[in-house]
Amino acid sequence: SGSKSLSGHFSQGEPEIHRNPFGTNPPLSPQLLNSLTPEENTQCQHGLYFQDGERRVDYILTYHIKKPSSSRSNRQSSRFTDNPRGDPEVASQDHSMDYHEDDKRYRREEFEGNLRDMGLELEKDEDTKTPGVGFVKIHAPWHVLCREAEFMKLKMPTKKVYEVKQCSGVGAKINTLVNKATEPLHPNVEENRGQHVKHLSYAFSREKQHLFFFLPVGITSLLGSGVYTAAYPLHDVSTHCNQHLLYEEWASYSVFYKYQPIGLVRKYFGEKIGLYFAWLGLYTQMLIPASLVGVIVFLYGCATVDNNIPSMEICHPRNNITMCPLCDRACNYWKLKEACGTARASHLFDNPATVFFSIFMALWAAMFMEHWKRRQMRLNYEWDLTGFEEEEVSDHPRAEYELCVMQKSLKKEHKTQKVLISYSWVFTVIQLLLTEKEKLTCRDRLPAYMTNIVMMLLMIGVTFAIVFGVILYRISITAALHMSNNPTTRSNVRLMVKTTAAIINLVVILILDEVYGAVARWLTVLEVPKTDRSFEERLIFKTFVLKFVNAFTPIIYIAFFRGRLVGRPGSYLYVFESYRMEECAHGGCLMELCIQLSITMLGKQLIQNNLFEIGIPKLKKLIRYIKSKRRSFQEEEREKKLQRYETDHFLEPFAGLTPEYMEMIIQFGFVTLFVASFPLAPLFALLNNIIEIRLDAKKFVAELRRPVAARAKDIGIWYNLLRGVAKVAVIINAFVISFTSDFIPRLVYQYMYSPDGSMHGFVNHTMSYFNVSDFQDGKEPMDPHHLGYQVEMCRYKDYREPPWSNTPYVVSKEFWAVLAARLAFVIVFQNVVMLMSDIVDWLIPDIPKDISLQIHKEKILMVELFMKEEQGKMQFIDSMTPCDGKGRNNHAPIARSRSIPHTHSHTHANNF
Amino acid sequence: SGSKSLSGHFSQGEPEIHRNPFGTNPPLSPQLLNSLTPEENTQCQHGLYFQDGERRVDYILTYHIKKPSSSRSNRQSSRFTDNPRGDPEVASQDHSMDYHEDDKRYRREEFEGNLRDMGLELEKDEDTKTPGVGFVKIHAPWHVLCREAEFMKLKMPTKKVYEVKQCSGVGAKINTLVNKATEPLHPNVEENRGQHVKHLSYAFSREKQHLFFFLPVGITSLLGSGVYTAAYPLHDVSTHCNQHLLYEEWASYSVFYKYQPIGLVRKYFGEKIGLYFAWLGLYTQMLIPASLVGVIVFLYGCATVDNNIPSMEICHPRNNITMCPLCDRACNYWKLKEACGTARASHLFDNPATVFFSIFMALWAAMFMEHWKRRQMRLNYEWDLTGFEEEEVSDHPRAEYELCVMQKSLKKEHKTQKVLISYSWVFTVIQLLLTEKEKLTCRDRLPAYMTNIVMMLLMIGVTFAIVFGVILYRISITAALHMSNNPTTRSNVRLMVKTTAAIINLVVILILDEVYGAVARWLTVLEVPKTDRSFEERLIFKTFVLKFVNAFTPIIYIAFFRGRLVGRPGSYLYVFESYRMEECAHGGCLMELCIQLSITMLGKQLIQNNLFEIGIPKLKKLIRYIKSKRRSFQEEEREKKLQRYETDHFLEPFAGLTPEYMEMIIQFGFVTLFVASFPLAPLFALLNNIIEIRLDAKKFVAELRRPVAARAKDIGIWYNLLRGVAKVAVIINAFVISFTSDFIPRLVYQYMYSPDGSMHGFVNHTMSYFNVSDFQDGKEPMDPHHLGYQVEMCRYKDYREPPWSNTPYVVSKEFWAVLAARLAFVIVFQNVVMLMSDIVDWLIPDIPKDISLQIHKEKILMVELFMKEEQGKMQFIDSMTPCDGKGRNNHAPIARSRSIPHTHSHTHANNF
Repeated sequence: SGSKSLSGHFSQGEPEIHRNPFGTNPPLSPQLLNSLTPEENTQCQHGLYFQDGERRVDYILTYHIKKPSSSRSNRQSSRFTDNPRGDPEVASQDHSMDYHEDDKRYRREEFEGNLRDMGLELEKDEDTKTPGVGFVKIHAPWHVLCREAEFMKLKMPTKKVYEVKQCSGVGAKINTLVNKATEPLHPNVEENRGQHVKHLSYAFSREKQHLFFFLPVGITSLLGSGVYTAAYPLHDVSTHCNQHLLYEEWASYSVFYKYQPIGLVRKYFGEKIGLYFAWLGLYTQMLIPASLVGVIVFLYGCATVDNNIPSMEICHPRNNITMCPLCDRACNYWKLKEACGTARASHLFDNPATVFFSIFMALWAAMFMEHWKRRQMRLNYEWDLTGFEEEEVSDHPRAEYELCVMQKSLKKEHKTQKVLISYSWVFTVIQLLLTEKEKLTCRDRLPAYMTNIVMMLLMIGVTFAIVFGVILYRISITAALHMSNNPTTRSNVRLMVKTTAAIINLVVILILDEVYGAVARWLTVLEVPKTDRSFEERLIFKTFVLKFVNAFTPIIYIAFFRGRLVGRPGSYLYVFESYRMEECAHGGCLMELCIQLSITMLGKQLIQNNLFEIGIPKLKKLIRYIKSKRRSFQEEEREKKLQRYETDHFLEPFAGLTPEYMEMIIQFGFVTLFVASFPLAPLFALLNNIIEIRLDAKKFVAELRRPVAARAKDIGIWYNLLRGVAKVAVIINAFVISFTSDFIPRLVYQYMYSPDGSMHGFVNHTMSYFNVSDFQDGKEPMDPHHLGYQVEMCRYKDYREPPWSNTPYVVSKEFWAVLAARLAFVIVFQNVVMLMSDIVDWLIPDIPKDISLQIHKEKILMVELFMKEEQGKMQFIDSMTPCDGKGRNNHAPIARSRSIPHTHSHTHANNF
Repeated sequence: SGSKSLSGHFSQGEPEIHRNPFGTNPPLSPQLLNSLTPEENTQCQHGLYFQDGERRVDYILTYHIKKPSSSRSNRQSSRFTDNPRGDPEVASQDHSMDYHEDDKRYRREEFEGNLRDMGLELEKDEDTKTPGVGFVKIHAPWHVLCREAEFMKLKMPTKKVYEVKQCSGVGAKINTLVNKATEPLHPNVEENRGQHVKHLSYAFSREKQHLFFFLPVGITSLLGSGVYTAAYPLHDVSTHCNQHLLYEEWASYSVFYKYQPIGLVRKYFGEKIGLYFAWLGLYTQMLIPASLVGVIVFLYGCATVDNNIPSMEICHPRNNITMCPLCDRACNYWKLKEACGTARASHLFDNPATVFFSIFMALWAAMFMEHWKRRQMRLNYEWDLTGFEEEEVSDHPRAEYELCVMQKSLKKEHKTQKVLISYSWVFTVIQLLLTEKEKLTCRDRLPAYMTNIVMMLLMIGVTFAIVFGVILYRISITAALHMSNNPTTRSNVRLMVKTTAAIINLVVILILDEVYGAVARWLTVLEVPKTDRSFEERLIFKTFVLKFVNAFTPIIYIAFFRGRLVGRPGSYLYVFESYRMEECAHGGCLMELCIQLSITMLGKQLIQNNLFEIGIPKLKKLIRYIKSKRRSFQEEEREKKLQRYETDHFLEPFAGLTPEYMEMIIQFGFVTLFVASFPLAPLFALLNNIIEIRLDAKKFVAELRRPVAARAKDIGIWYNLLRGVAKVAVIINAFVISFTSDFIPRLVYQYMYSPDGSMHGFVNHTMSYFNVSDFQDGKEPMDPHHLGYQVEMCRYKDYREPPWSNTPYVVSKEFWAVLAARLAFVIVFQNVVMLMSDIVDWLIPDIPKDISLQIHKEKILMVELFMKEEQGKMQFIDSMTPCDGKGRNNHAPIARSRSIPHTHSHTHANNF
């Protein structure tokens, strides 16, 4: 019987359980593997099987061969190849291979020998249509898979089936209705039907990644040193197998409105990738209500813009307020009426509804985290991962780490010997030190750590410098354009400068993103982390910090610093003694924040996703197409007949999920961090993600080599990062509302200063007076009569004492009152929202009710099964021991099991 | 062989493993039970064994008997006792028992029959020296224990022993030194020696509380309805058994400086109580550094009191500031110099060191939580609980709940029938509803929930009312005493009023504490929670809320409201139109907060612990002693010869750990919540806890019936409550520092207003001017010339405009500036401390490094063992099946195991 599946894919066997030829085994023995029907065997033969057409290829190793030689590499060759005389061709070939190549071959053969010892079956193929590449096909026979499954404590579905409890009565009817209504949203995959029955599964034994998993572990160092060039399992391309179904029901834009067939994804790619897509799906789903509310909030802003008293006052024709010039000398006094458009636009994003919306989004984030915990729990249960514990200590140190340790101990030995010559009295001390097992200590790592810190600070400094550069650009261009005499140019100045600056920022962010990714990887390699897991975590952390700083520094500058470090007329703040710091437009900086946010977010998504992820692969294909045109027809024909493992060899290797998660978490940052200023962010994110899911799906199904299925219970460090972002979002939104928007000044005016409790007079209240005679020499406008009259007093937006007070131009009492109100709002907002999030966290149980009930039920069933099994076994032993010969036929299952002794004994033993 | 121990105590067998007579069994079969040596058997016979002196008493049930009858109750009697004629004595007795008694007896016999069916052995004793009480002694035989152990998936120590890795080299030497230094701190218990070796343990099977645990579950309803009066296991009083050791090395004040023998406590009382004492021990240990730093902070305050410029200025002989009167009419103008003492005392608790200290304590709390997580993990590992999962769904609904459900369904049926008569068309709908399993819905619970909410609000209202009453008391007494002419009385007025008010508060708190405990229980009973666990959680939550509100309302009033709702001279705030709100003494309310805190905390601890926990039991003993004097000598003598189960019957029943935890969590509140104002709180807590540990220990060992050992992995809801308190502490401390203390005004003065950057002039700056001519009629002092001169301006502590400004007496710019600074401090403090706590949380791994390494090692060893075992088994089956007769003697372990077939098969099977 042909066996299917490979490392980590054991659990695929679920539905085919009854097809197993050993189905008559004792009731609990799990049936790991599916058998393929004969039709299938003949159908998808293109390199999916060994030469005998029986054994399936489970894994591929490739290596570089100097010159393609006809299949002779199976021959055993020792390290020092003694060539048999009399075969001149071979001698000349071996001669051409240098010592280095020889060494690699030796190591390959050693490794392959190990694999054979472990029971794997290998087949070599150096005579393919791909010149220069040798393939090792690996097949894992049934008994090896069984052994491994046991060591990994995979939960296997048993034959015991039980009915998942269905709510009866009214609840059931509603449920049926809901199911019918959402029918078209479900993918056309069989797994969604007949979920009323579940196979009882039980863990074999403790989690232990062992033996077979030694393959990917041991292979990394061989891959690193170039002994092998690639290692991957094969895509499963038979017409009615999973890949095809995935292609139709998942990796297609035409099904964008449907749920993902997560179970199928997990079966084909393993739990780790399954969890990523499940997470992405839930996130996208959760974005629907968020973007709905966001759109409503935005529409509320649009609807109320005509009733907004402050902007009405600014736009009022009789409004005659003269404002102080926006730059030195070149700029003139201007009328507040000119800011009418900006003021009206500001209202769209700066109204009471945005306060509500940012509270809503904080709670949304808490809900999302909670829902994910529940979904994860549900998937853990459905995928039988509940008992699975991730290894606390990863076994295998990385090859680089071991190399480093070796170098260190060599150096130490050398030093010790030196020291011994000069100081014999320290001998004992050193002996003591040497008894400890060699490892990299803090001191060894100090240089790397120092480099890390310095480089990280440097990179962050670079980001700051670039942001500062953009500020200078903005200031100088504004000043320059103001000097132009063209009035239309001048009126469009602000918008143009803002937009170009935002685009420059975007481009810089995109470039630095790539640079920082590379820097983070380089720094992590420098650190020589001990295990792969530690490597990944350090890399993620560094990348996260750098990319976040990169994406959010310009936004934070606009939100919290811009317009605050301006100084006041008569004593403006200057950068480099000539650049006056920029002010915000009338109506707060919220408008500019909004522009910056939307450009960054949209730009990043459009360019990074669509250009990089869609465009570049398309471009590559085009190039390949053009190249193939040049080739001869024969060669092209040959390409079509490539074996499956050769086709897969030409695909991009799978580079891990880190970039996918990173992209999403930065998007999550855009959605939550500054949502108070940009209620449309969730909508943009939603639109992007609908494409993103199918894009990623296509990539995984068709453009990447099939990744090795990895097991995982959760999304690991990403969950913590999400939580961190959600926490920071609360405080940032509090500050945006209270400091960036005019929400608090309006409230303070209304309840403390307004004569009639309305907003009338607010605009006037927020502006201080300036006596133009107090301008410093050379800073006053060149053309004071620009407005047609002699200006004596001009106004500016700040809370300062008027020129006629005892203490002119110092901050006024109103300033402090508004500041106190702003700070009080931050405290109240932060604590209320945190409390509400905690309550949400507390109200929603982490484990869904039905799952916990089912787990409970399973436990009871399991105990019952044990009891029965136990009785059966006792009877068996009773009947066997007296040797009366009767027992043998009465206890067929155990007697029959002896035909596959090794495997079955394990299976049997591990049901308990 | 006699078997020891009972439900939940199985795991005691660890050290005696090799004594088991079946020691030659297969290597893995765990040896559950210890055998007692014959000497022991004869020594502690006083009711610890059945009549045969062989079978040990594991559990006791007691019941009430109307008249002591000679042991005839073992006789089978049916529900409707048909008395055999011809036995007039029995007839008359049975006659005297009413139907009710009969029913109880029937239910007892039914229950006992069930126990026997489960394999337990029972012995009845109604003929004891305790009249009116019947005893049922229960013995659990070995095979029953084994079966139960398996169902509970207890981790059993196997014979496989491995060495716990010792750090070698310098580390080891330091370790040895530390161990030697702390030698006297360890209790003289053997378990602390020889910890280098650990028995490899492995879980039997999945967690399932089953069968035997049905005993405590089923018994609750029987206890509730009075069928049985008590149910408890026996204390183990043989001289060299655990209780004795516990008594000497744990429950004694003379070992107060030693660590607790936690392993022994866990062995004797089970994991749940063990965890409580481990937690209490860690908490006490962690209080040592906290109280040290607290004392240092306090001493720093003492040392700097003479250099404190504000108090120097107040006490300066040339200080001539005239203050406005503290109450209407009766009080006079006074000199600020009079406040010298208070100002100096305030400095002790209101100096920059307290800011540092409250940050320190916030981090301390975070550290404590982290350390507890680690300790818990370590204990879980050492106690072999790592695989143990607590049941998500508690099986057994409480008897009260089931009663309620039954009543409901009866009522419904009744209603349904009624309805059916009138409306036959709703028949189907009701049928549909009835198919669902009956349970209590939200609507059924609504009345109880409403009562709960109303009562909780009412209780909280009562607390508020009492606090308000105390305020009124303080105001009125102050006014009355001020009117007295005696100058010494007047000068002592403030202190006296403060102290008496604090004592009244304390008394009220103590009384309400008891009331609230009862109310919370009553409310929870009203709610009819479904399971015991839910009952406990609801009860704890309610008690926690009520007791916390009770303990902290007066303190919160003083910290945040007192002195803030005063108004200003000329327009004071009045309560009931005549009571002027009280002010704080000069130097902030921090001093008064400190007095209130220390009195409440010390008083609560001294009275609740020492009086209630030590005094009352002593009193009870005294009463018993006096009573016994009256009795005849014979009876007293008889008492001495009481069986062990009779002695235990007279002990107090174990009432759960809730009161102990509650006491500690409220103390934790005192230690963390207001620590900014009272740095000595940790010291007081430490002193209290050193006594508390031993006090509780004594109580558990000698004064309570032995509790049923319960398994637990963690301290449950208490951990969340602790975390909650620690979180709230951060924000409360931020507010105490910024609003209650003068820290921020001092800083603002120093950096914004001080002419020379020093604190000189601060006192003057904080006080506003009042023109005495602006007093309302009838509110001015009766004796304006009291100070010897005509007062025109008096001063009061507030930031208000002077009488000569344009807007007299409105709050000044300084007020807003200080307010803004205060709020900014709260934001910065809260976020910085929260961030630091998160970093602490992140830096300290939850699982100690050595434990995770050991777990890893165990896993590897376990796999190796499996392999060997597996091979052995295969060989066994191989040799058995051909029936050549050789196998039997070669495979002694399995052959021998057949003498105890049921048990061993389980043990054997569950090693996998």
